[in-house]
Amino acid sequence: MTSQKEPQEGSSSLTKVTGPSSWSRVSCPCCISSHIEPLVLIQLAESVQPITKQWIMSMISAPVKTGGAQLLVHPGEDMKGDMIVVAAPRCTLLRVTEDLGLCKTYHDGNMTAFSFDDRDNFCNIDDMQKFLTLAERQYIIKYQMDSMRAMEDQRIPGIPTAKGKLKARESILQKLEKAGVIRNVTPLHEQKLLTALGKQWYSQKSLWGQPLDSIHAYFGGTIAYYFSFLDFYTLSLFPPAILGLFITFFLPSANFSSGNKTDSEPTPPKDDDDQPSVSSYMVQAVFSMLWSTIFMELWKRRSASLSYRWGTFNLAEQFQEPRPGFHGELGTNPVTGRLEPLFPEWKRRLRMGLVSVPVVGVFLGLVVMGMAGFYFCERLVSNWHKGSGSYFTAILLYLPSIAHIVYTNVLGNIYRNVALRLTESENHREESSFDYHHTTKVLVFTFFNNFAVLFHIAFFKEDMPLLRKRLASLLIVTQVVNQFTEVVVPFLVDRFLTSGDRNLKEDDPEVDHLQAQGSLPAFPGLFAEYIELLVQFGYLSLFSCVYPLTAPLLLLNNLTEIRTDAYKLCKLFNKPFSAPVANMGVWQPAFEVLSFISVMSNCWLLLLSPHVREFTQEAGLSTNKVLVIAVIVEHVLIMVKMILAFMIPDEPDWLRIKREQIEYHSMQALKKQRIKSSRVDDKLSSKAKMGE
Amino acid sequence: MTSQKEPQEGSSSLTKVTGPSSWSRVSCPCCISSHIEPLVLIQLAESVQPITKQWIMSMISAPVKTGGAQLLVHPGEDMKGDMIVVAAPRCTLLRVTEDLGLCKTYHDGNMTAFSFDDRDNFCNIDDMQKFLTLAERQYIIKYQMDSMRAMEDQRIPGIPTAKGKLKARESILQKLEKAGVIRNVTPLHEQKLLTALGKQWYSQKSLWGQPLDSIHAYFGGTIAYYFSFLDFYTLSLFPPAILGLFITFFLPSANFSSGNKTDSEPTPPKDDDDQPSVSSYMVQAVFSMLWSTIFMELWKRRSASLSYRWGTFNLAEQFQEPRPGFHGELGTNPVTGRLEPLFPEWKRRLRMGLVSVPVVGVFLGLVVMGMAGFYFCERLVSNWHKGSGSYFTAILLYLPSIAHIVYTNVLGNIYRNVALRLTESENHREESSFDYHHTTKVLVFTFFNNFAVLFHIAFFKEDMPLLRKRLASLLIVTQVVNQFTEVVVPFLVDRFLTSGDRNLKEDDPEVDHLQAQGSLPAFPGLFAEYIELLVQFGYLSLFSCVYPLTAPLLLLNNLTEIRTDAYKLCKLFNKPFSAPVANMGVWQPAFEVLSFISVMSNCWLLLLSPHVREFTQEAGLSTNKVLVIAVIVEHVLIMVKMILAFMIPDEPDWLRIKREQIEYHSMQALKKQRIKSSRVDDKLSSKAKMGE
Repeated sequence: MTSQKEPQEGSSSLTKVTGPSSWSRVSCPCCISSHIEPLVLIQLAESVQPITKQWIMSMISAPVKTGGAQLLVHPGEDMKGDMIVVAAPRCTLLRVTEDLGLCKTYHDGNMTAFSFDDRDNFCNIDDMQKFLTLAERQYIIKYQMDSMRAMEDQRIPGIPTAKGKLKARESILQKLEKAGVIRNVTPLHEQKLLTALGKQWYSQKSLWGQPLDSIHAYFGGTIAYYFSFLDFYTLSLFPPAILGLFITFFLPSANFSSGNKTDSEPTPPKDDDDQPSVSSYMVQAVFSMLWSTIFMELWKRRSASLSYRWGTFNLAEQFQEPRPGFHGELGTNPVTGRLEPLFPEWKRRLRMGLVSVPVVGVFLGLVVMGMAGFYFCERLVSNWHKGSGSYFTAILLYLPSIAHIVYTNVLGNIYRNVALRLTESENHREESSFDYHHTTKVLVFTFFNNFAVLFHIAFFKEDMPLLRKRLASLLIVTQVVNQFTEVVVPFLVDRFLTSGDRNLKEDDPEVDHLQAQGSLPAFPGLFAEYIELLVQFGYLSLFSCVYPLTAPLLLLNNLTEIRTDAYKLCKLFNKPFSAPVANMGVWQPAFEVLSFISVMSNCWLLLLSPHVREFTQEAGLSTNKVLVIAVIVEHVLIMVKMILAFMIPDEPDWLRIKREQIEYHSMQALKKQRIKSSRVDDKLSSKAKMGE
Repeated sequence: MTSQKEPQEGSSSLTKVTGPSSWSRVSCPCCISSHIEPLVLIQLAESVQPITKQWIMSMISAPVKTGGAQLLVHPGEDMKGDMIVVAAPRCTLLRVTEDLGLCKTYHDGNMTAFSFDDRDNFCNIDDMQKFLTLAERQYIIKYQMDSMRAMEDQRIPGIPTAKGKLKARESILQKLEKAGVIRNVTPLHEQKLLTALGKQWYSQKSLWGQPLDSIHAYFGGTIAYYFSFLDFYTLSLFPPAILGLFITFFLPSANFSSGNKTDSEPTPPKDDDDQPSVSSYMVQAVFSMLWSTIFMELWKRRSASLSYRWGTFNLAEQFQEPRPGFHGELGTNPVTGRLEPLFPEWKRRLRMGLVSVPVVGVFLGLVVMGMAGFYFCERLVSNWHKGSGSYFTAILLYLPSIAHIVYTNVLGNIYRNVALRLTESENHREESSFDYHHTTKVLVFTFFNNFAVLFHIAFFKEDMPLLRKRLASLLIVTQVVNQFTEVVVPFLVDRFLTSGDRNLKEDDPEVDHLQAQGSLPAFPGLFAEYIELLVQFGYLSLFSCVYPLTAPLLLLNNLTEIRTDAYKLCKLFNKPFSAPVANMGVWQPAFEVLSFISVMSNCWLLLLSPHVREFTQEAGLSTNKVLVIAVIVEHVLIMVKMILAFMIPDEPDWLRIKREQIEYHSMQALKKQRIKSSRVDDKLSSKAKMGE
């Protein structure tokens, strides 16, 4: 552990302002300060020539007008010369804060959209470390570097002609990354803060509570939202976990036991414990429906409050510069009046509707075909095994499963590439909408992959005992695998690494600290973490009435999950950039859609359960009638769900009022501004007349 | 017809500004004008004492600060003294235009939210008749009179104590109407404009085209939206009408004939014309699904364009005064800072969810029970008739139908009252949201009432021939009844009326013209008109694949409907007040929901059709499997529908850009305003310091 090995501030030349191989000059007088905080590390390829490095540094420190990023650069101090350290002057930080639409505490105590001209009325404006969080400062540097553009056709010095050609308005950073000049761009850790955060977060002894504000400040919006959601979700698991335990252990004649019976031999037509089983099915189904609705609605409120607290409820991404990958005909943005590429919305929608959706559909079809093939082969092989019964055929029994797993994996890998290409061809203007559509594509596929088999068992085979067995094994296997990959492997890796590169002394040169940070693997993003939660939530809400122990198992899993995720993030990966966001993005609708599907799935499971079947047969209802009744019940339940969702407002009242206040005041301000500007026009024209 | 009897402008004392029994004085100098346009007529009860009339007039002309309406009043000239004519000074018109958030043409040609202080930059500002439409001017008067409030506890002079007590902040107009002092408040017709409008609208010879802008100017937003929608809907009926005619007459072996066969005798198990019939079913079903989606999406775009054209795309009802019926604890509105009653949103939602929804549910249950009772009695009576076969029992056969009709009507009347009470208890702040929730309640019930029987036949009895017969008879009966009540009766009534009161000569005193207008019945609102369209649309999209002639019949009906509705509105009723609105309100989602239900209904109808059944039986699929397949097909179709809806943006690109421009500029303006106000603060504080 490095908790006692904090580098002392100001001890190295990296924080010195002047001297040989020091920071670039600050262009504006207000930004001169005695202390510069290194924020981002750029690692160059080893083959890069000094002239290229020099050019990159000059671009980063050049003013925005000339296509630069207006940041501070330091050449690093290592022998190889393959590092650039970047920091930001005060003015740049403040201007980008306004561009991003971040809200900060105003002098009246309200969170208010930051405005550079009005900066003196905001709290903490004199101390950038307090005014902006570390994650925000680092994201601002990334944002500025992303918006570096070539002003005219030019060549990057020191790079062979073919790779080094820059067209006018091309993104410089993207080009450098494509050309292999830049290996990676990483925000720097601040060991002191990190150690303190780790102590509060994953080393603590108490079972509950994460330092969410500190996480937000240190790691930024997307990551803080993930952990907030995980926190909230885990807390919400308590009621279903208690119900699940109660049903399993205190209703002895419940599903689990009777299910096992039906598995081995046909159930006797009428048990004494018939009634409680049906009713526990019902209780589980109705409870899980209500629970998932209330959970999602309360999360929305919490999420809205967090976005206010973290100053991101008023982000104005559509008024920012487009994301680097965006292309289109150059023109004047009719809204902001800036010169930038334009791409018509209808073209994008056409591409989504006519290309993306059908292609995704084809891949989903391939998943279904793969499953059908798997079942076909399995039947074939098992018949064969029954016929001959040799060891060879016993081994062959595993073949379909293996083939299916390989097929699924290969398909998944191809799909991942296709999804990225499709989303790129949709040419989204905003980073967040790119992420949204990309994630949606991957999500739908992953989800389908995970649940297709379960749905097949539940609705085509209609084999409840098999579903129960499968669900139990999935849950237990997933947990064991998770615990292993997320706890044991990281721990071993960390031990191993700590003894190697990262075991640095306090008095080692700072450059080694930097290099150690750059050597970690890149953070793979939150997709895997979120999808794990979503699949869990799916098991719980779609099929929980079949296997009531789902919730307690998940609760157990999540309590460790929080800690292992935190540990991973702090210790095992490079720090990721994390954009300021106002919500979980696409994951929120994903959870909501799932909770709607769960109503249908629970209704059908109820309908297909052997006890309900017997019951309807006794009542003399035809299969058709029962189905129609089930459909009606399903629709009524969906109605109840929608009414419940409607009754719980998506944002707390105080937040709605704040939002309306801003809306009202900006409407008023627009009117007043029009008057002022027309008066100025009048004055000008009257002056012009007097001048005649 | 009164087309040649236009009153000449300025011929009566009603337009004179001074003299005995003339208009009240104008309070501000800019509003003085030589010509006053009478806009609204208030009719008092005959028993009202002169002192009460005097008080009402003084309140209407009093300034807003003292609880008045700041309008111009004229005592009228009739003997009975039971009229008050109201007009509006220029300043009041302009101020309320700003309050309503209406947009008008700015000097740069854009529609811009009107601002009183910036009035000189708007086009046509000097001519109120051009600047505001007639309907807008009249609505403004209603708006102002609605907001008249008692400033303290007081008594209305000349009214007995119990009725005449006004509490502080009580709405004066509401009180007067409740106390029976005011019989009704009507906007006045302008005969010249009306005649010209009528000529273009319903007397024209050409089959197509309505003067929508003139309708909007004369009758106002809600009515113009209704006719625009009717127009658009009728035009959209052409494709399904052509398809329907084609299927009926050019595919001789289609549903209709084979359906009749199944009615009289069981169909032979395998026809030669089996295939085309199934395919025409399919074509109809898929076509109607696509058609309804595209129709609604294109209408949304048209509706958005209209709202820009008519200056209502930026209405700010949430920042206006609450509607007169709104009650709550008096407090400061946290957004606008005005003193007004406050009512928490969560309480409203709680009342909706826990009271309104269950009560509506109970009434829907009663409808279903009524229907069940009807079928039960019918079976009983028909069995009885089969047994005895006398004339008496033949008459008895009609009894269940009659009882059911009476039951439905009584239930409908009770429900209408309950719906109003419920909506009132929900205590909506805005008029539009009150209307929305009230209409939704009535709508759901009416719809249920209309379609419950058809759904029962389609899904429980599964009797396609009966459904087809029922649909045909409903369509034909509805049309005959409609044509009769909407064409013949109005025409007769008009003839009858024209020979009586309304046959006024040009030189008759204007007061008689006024009185004639007051004597017409009040306009019953657009609910009946919209629900007629919705039910039509329901027949068409839910069941059209059973009876392909639906669309041509509806087209025929709508072409006359446009004219009769127009005639009715112009001639047979008092002119209604019509608020500026940005869309059709609740009717748009209603049509959309219906078009979603239609996907499900068409899938089920297809599944239940005898031909498809044979087909699946031959293919050896179990009923369960077929149902699961049907559910999957249904979900895929709903997906296709949603993708289509997504691909057609809800508003045209140019409008989206205008909206974003406004958003962007107001954001900028708010920031600038903050700086300005903080500078003013600084100046003040520095002055204060200097003064020390």
